[in-house]
Amino acid sequence: MSGERVSFRLSLGQRWEAADSLLCVGLDPDPRRIPAHLGKGKPAILAFCSEIIAATADQACAFKPQVAYFAAAGAESVLEELVRYIHREHPGIPVILDAKRGDIGHTAEQYAAEAFDRFQADALTVNPFMGLDSIEPYLARPGKGVILLCRTSNPGGGDFQLLESNGERLFERIARLAAGPWNGGGELGLVVGATYPEELRRVRELAPTLPLLVPGVGAQGGDVQATVTAGLDAAGGGLVINSSRAILYAGEDRDFAGAARRASVEARDAIRRAVTARQH
Amino acid sequence: MSGERVSFRLSLGQRWEAADSLLCVGLDPDPRRIPAHLGKGKPAILAFCSEIIAATADQACAFKPQVAYFAAAGAESVLEELVRYIHREHPGIPVILDAKRGDIGHTAEQYAAEAFDRFQADALTVNPFMGLDSIEPYLARPGKGVILLCRTSNPGGGDFQLLESNGERLFERIARLAAGPWNGGGELGLVVGATYPEELRRVRELAPTLPLLVPGVGAQGGDVQATVTAGLDAAGGGLVINSSRAILYAGEDRDFAGAARRASVEARDAIRRAVTARQH
Repeated sequence: MSGERVSFRLSLGQRWEAADSLLCVGLDPDPRRIPAHLGKGKPAILAFCSEIIAATADQACAFKPQVAYFAAAGAESVLEELVRYIHREHPGIPVILDAKRGDIGHTAEQYAAEAFDRFQADALTVNPFMGLDSIEPYLARPGKGVILLCRTSNPGGGDFQLLESNGERLFERIARLAAGPWNGGGELGLVVGATYPEELRRVRELAPTLPLLVPGVGAQGGDVQATVTAGLDAAGGGLVINSSRAILYAGEDRDFAGAARRASVEARDAIRRAVTARQH
Repeated sequence: MSGERVSFRLSLGQRWEAADSLLCVGLDPDPRRIPAHLGKGKPAILAFCSEIIAATADQACAFKPQVAYFAAAGAESVLEELVRYIHREHPGIPVILDAKRGDIGHTAEQYAAEAFDRFQADALTVNPFMGLDSIEPYLARPGKGVILLCRTSNPGGGDFQLLESNGERLFERIARLAAGPWNGGGELGLVVGATYPEELRRVRELAPTLPLLVPGVGAQGGDVQATVTAGLDAAGGGLVINSSRAILYAGEDRDFAGAARRASVEARDAIRRAVTARQH
């Protein structure tokens, strides 16, 4: 998949079916946790992520590189190479760039160019705080997914996202707008943390057909069954359940890729079982 | 200024006095508008920004590089070089990295490393949508400025920032928290657009001593006198009034640096006159 002609929404739907998986593998390469035998610096990040990708691709409905880890290491060129590698070796697996960008006008166009032209991502996470016109430059890219922060998984997420105005909490307003008036191109999705299943359920109610990117399972303590029960769409899909650290650092030694593979199989199977349990 | 030992807040205060200027020069190098004689790609971005910096430094209380322009062009190395150049050639002028980052925990730590270690910025703009724990990793850096989005200059800024909850609009809540409970280290500031002077006045009321970074004067139509009247603190300062395009692209030919200098002198003088008019 070049990411140019295909709709993120469609390719994600095809991948859910083809892989029978709702598991997204997050790529957060922390230099302090990359196994020592891979060395240091950019070559180590490249080797680490490549092996993780190869070991987990058949279990994944998507890959989600977190751009902050590459930026802190000055390793943007490695990120470029990894996305090319995914598109070439594993066509059909969408790449969601987790960058949480948020800016306006010309500047937002530059961020869209960064994500979609430079890094060849299929979708981008975006912070909606600055409003609709801050999102439009991303929506202007045909077929590219735009995944808005809605109810984030961290404790402080409630500081603003839970504020109620006109009988509607802020995250509910974002979900409602994303499901309707803002979604002309049909490529919007939402980020909703696994740590708040009741609010995940509410988002699914407001946005019955949107893909929901769900971080917070695993290391952050979110429960798989609660997530699936709350977030599944009517067709039994609609979720992109992310796991980063629990897979990447399942084994921090020479067998790290084998350990990551086993962790990804377990995670995908746990999600599958939860889907089956929910449907019966 | 290495940016390591000095407090952003203190160095900004010293610079306001030393330069008698509240003007911030924004560095948004748009490849489509860089004069043709400078060539293409990274060398053109470096030459363009270096000349702008040299031509405007004595007029500026701060420089504000917009990271999106460098990221879209794959020119992070140029940004690194430019900040080193500012610190070396113009010590005492703080560098505010405009990146509007927003993420949690380990990821936010990576963004802090990007801004403060890699790019050697003195301050960073941060999106507060994810709440207090998403800001703490930046506040943990002693002496580094953290400038939170509060009331942004774009029309869509009102989509969420004006929502009222418990008798308080969202931007008012951010200003109140930034002025008090969140500002233990004393290094917080706020972004408030020049396009809404009445709301700028309200933010100044809620945050009497915080530095306010004010975009939207010039190309976006904000009025200098209204901005100064609404936003000045009790000591007759407290504002970082940004101008990017009106200075950078004042002349798009071989004399671009001369034209930028003249535009920066005019902008600083217009702000000074507005300060004087406000105080009488």
